[in-house]
Amino acid sequence: MSDPLRLGVVGLGRGFALSARAIAAHPGLRLVGAADPDDESCRAVQGAFGGRIYGDIAALAGDPDIEAIYICTPHHLHRDHALTALRAGKHVLVEKPMAVTLAETHAMIDAAEAEARQLIVGPSHSFDAPVRLAAEMIAAGAIGAVKMIHALYATDFLYRPRRAAELAGDLGGGAVLGQAIHQIDVVRRLAGVPAQRVTARTGGAWDPARRVEGAYAMLVDFDGGIFATLTYSGHGHFDGDRLMEGISELGIRKPDRHRATHPRLHATADEAAARRARRFTRLEDCPQPETHEHFGQVIVFGTQGDLRLTPEGVELSDAQRRSFHPAPITTPRAEVFDALYAAIRHGRAPLQDGAWGRASLEICLAALAGARSGAVQPLQFQR
Amino acid sequence: MSDPLRLGVVGLGRGFALSARAIAAHPGLRLVGAADPDDESCRAVQGAFGGRIYGDIAALAGDPDIEAIYICTPHHLHRDHALTALRAGKHVLVEKPMAVTLAETHAMIDAAEAEARQLIVGPSHSFDAPVRLAAEMIAAGAIGAVKMIHALYATDFLYRPRRAAELAGDLGGGAVLGQAIHQIDVVRRLAGVPAQRVTARTGGAWDPARRVEGAYAMLVDFDGGIFATLTYSGHGHFDGDRLMEGISELGIRKPDRHRATHPRLHATADEAAARRARRFTRLEDCPQPETHEHFGQVIVFGTQGDLRLTPEGVELSDAQRRSFHPAPITTPRAEVFDALYAAIRHGRAPLQDGAWGRASLEICLAALAGARSGAVQPLQFQR
Ligand SMILES: NC(=O)c1ccc[n+]([C@@H]2O[C@H](COP(=O)([O-])OP(=O)(O)OC[C@H]3O[C@@H](n4cnc5c(N)ncnc54)[C@H](O)[C@@H]3O)[C@@H](O)[C@H]2O)c1
Ligand SMILES: NC(=O)c1ccc[n+]([C@@H]2O[C@H](COP(=O)([O-])OP(=O)(O)OC[C@H]3O[C@@H](n4cnc5c(N)ncnc54)[C@H](O)[C@@H]3O)[C@@H](O)[C@H]2O)c1
Repeated sequence: MSDPLRLGVVGLGRGFALSARAIAAHPGLRLVGAADPDDESCRAVQGAFGGRIYGDIAALAGDPDIEAIYICTPHHLHRDHALTALRAGKHVLVEKPMAVTLAETHAMIDAAEAEARQLIVGPSHSFDAPVRLAAEMIAAGAIGAVKMIHALYATDFLYRPRRAAELAGDLGGGAVLGQAIHQIDVVRRLAGVPAQRVTARTGGAWDPARRVEGAYAMLVDFDGGIFATLTYSGHGHFDGDRLMEGISELGIRKPDRHRATHPRLHATADEAAARRARRFTRLEDCPQPETHEHFGQVIVFGTQGDLRLTPEGVELSDAQRRSFHPAPITTPRAEVFDALYAAIRHGRAPLQDGAWGRASLEICLAALAGARSGAVQPLQFQR
Repeated sequence: MSDPLRLGVVGLGRGFALSARAIAAHPGLRLVGAADPDDESCRAVQGAFGGRIYGDIAALAGDPDIEAIYICTPHHLHRDHALTALRAGKHVLVEKPMAVTLAETHAMIDAAEAEARQLIVGPSHSFDAPVRLAAEMIAAGAIGAVKMIHALYATDFLYRPRRAAELAGDLGGGAVLGQAIHQIDVVRRLAGVPAQRVTARTGGAWDPARRVEGAYAMLVDFDGGIFATLTYSGHGHFDGDRLMEGISELGIRKPDRHRATHPRLHATADEAAARRARRFTRLEDCPQPETHEHFGQVIVFGTQGDLRLTPEGVELSDAQRRSFHPAPITTPRAEVFDALYAAIRHGRAPLQDGAWGRASLEICLAALAGARSGAVQPLQFQR
């Protein structure tokens, strides 16, 4: 990687903080520009990475030195920010979910095509090394044909300090756009074929103080008769990391005691301030993974064997034996920036391109619609 | 229990062997008669329990000393055997699934009513003490309102030695009638309200050598917007007991190595003989549980907390803390025979009566039909 990418970033909050170590550690990148209306955040990033700082996406996109922009602003700004970046000739890496409506994704995909720029959606947990390893093992025939996939996760999503938009369904708040998008990405990658339709239920506002859906269940049909169940709660009661060897979504070993997210939140007088406190401040304060990231319990059932994903690799159980296949630990999220590098320097678009991101978002939106109507939802942007 | 029930049993195979210790240990029962065309089995039971032996259900039902008959013959005989017993004035405990068609269950329920006899369906895992404890905790408000239920299990069901009928869908073979019935029973008990409809997929004949469905996934809707996902594989690859502290369905601690059911089966020249070897022989040879029985991972999500079932009790996670609530270990399956005793001696019918058994079977049959057609299946015998 003799020719590092010159990267800009817009939106210097939590999402950026989670990727900052991977960016800093990546030999193929240099963060040369950052934009956020929040001046403190800009200066924090400048302190950590050097580079230039801007007050908005237009100014960032106008920086001729920048080749690609990583968009980690709130969901409902992704479209505008991606269009601004693409039209300025920048490649785009946009956070999950790609956008909030399908119309927005069409515009983004069209713009990327018109400008002949790369459009990549991530990080999402489909990039996690154990997911990739599992997909490779499947492709190599380790479990015969994939037939059924099970995914379950339970987190404290709803009780982390939130911005108002995150608790408003129409701005893309809630567990489906925020969390199912990961689970769907993982399951789609492992199914390896297009989804056909989804039947979904959501748990809406179980807690009147958090008026957005915090849980869901889905049954997704894929080509070839493959089916998957996805179940999730973000209510902060049962802790799904206990099914993942006690390792958090971010790849950090947790003490074996109950995470008391609710009491902490209730003790917080100013939620907005607590939310702000989770922004990027210093590299040293960003979460430091010990294993890969993950998105909970995932089991793939095949004709000849089953795979269980763990934070450190993949466990294969077939008729004869159980074996563990470690996924070498690099920097988590390195995969995302490897993909960005390969796309831009070598023209090799990753799986998680614009069409991929749209397909995952379509399933989320169909799940929300289907949960409202009770009907099975056909899908049309999966190919 | 000063006045023990005088019990007869028909069908002295695997199902009976699994209940034999509970029957022998129960202070409220005396096994006084047994019937099976297999003479060796009859003599084995007589050796263990004393009592009289018969060649068929009619002769057993004609024994005037017997008050109740436990029917553990193959599914497709349940209706005829139940009708014979009921019409001879006997109470009936019939193994799960209650029957193979809804018409059969109607006839059984009508006969029990006409004869004013008890009709109980079990054992099923809905009787397991942790399930009962969880239901009691829910009723006491431990988790607020139940909203979502998750159930996952993976066993070697398909590769245990089988009779031909067990590998024939039209005789009630396959994972749905044989196994989903347990999971549905457990989930129904925990939901606590009637189911409304089911969306299901089945994995049919992934292995051409075992031509019956060995896996399934279901999304079940209940009254009040409660929804549940049920996922199961009986393909003998991933071992679901590893999610249950390494304890088997029957409540026995397992060594931490892969159960090699396939190789054992393939090494078996005569599957029918291997199947026969699992019948009742001696009490000492019947499985000896160390904990409660279970049917895999079950998590109940409520507005105020979640419950996870374990083989030894119930784990409660709410906003404040995680706590474990042991279910006192008695003899597993004692609950079933306690229920039989209470029904007959005190006229207190258990939850798991004929209408209950029909409702669970209806969900199984609807799941099979829905998996064939792809359509959501409404339910009508749930109240
Ligand atoms: N992949 C992951 O694991 C992950 C984790 C967290 C967040 N995210 C994603 O990152 C995105 C941002 O979420 P977040 O949690 O970081 O939110 P956040 O509120 O922590 O950060 C958003 C940042 O964007 C800035 N911003 C707001 N409007 C802006 C504008 N018009 N121009 C420039 N900057 C603007 C804010 O000042 C803030 O610094 C979301 O799409 C979210 O889904 C992804
Ligand atoms: N609750 C549980 O955990 C559990 C476990 C295993 C089986 N079962 C149930 O028990 C029932 C029997 O299954 P199994 O596994 O014991 O089968 P099995 O083949 O092991 O035993 C069936 C027995 O019924 C006898 N039989 C056959 N036809 C008969 C007839 N006409 N009259 C009298 N006896 C007859 C056979 O000789 C045999 O002894 C099934 O409905 C099954 O679902 C329940």
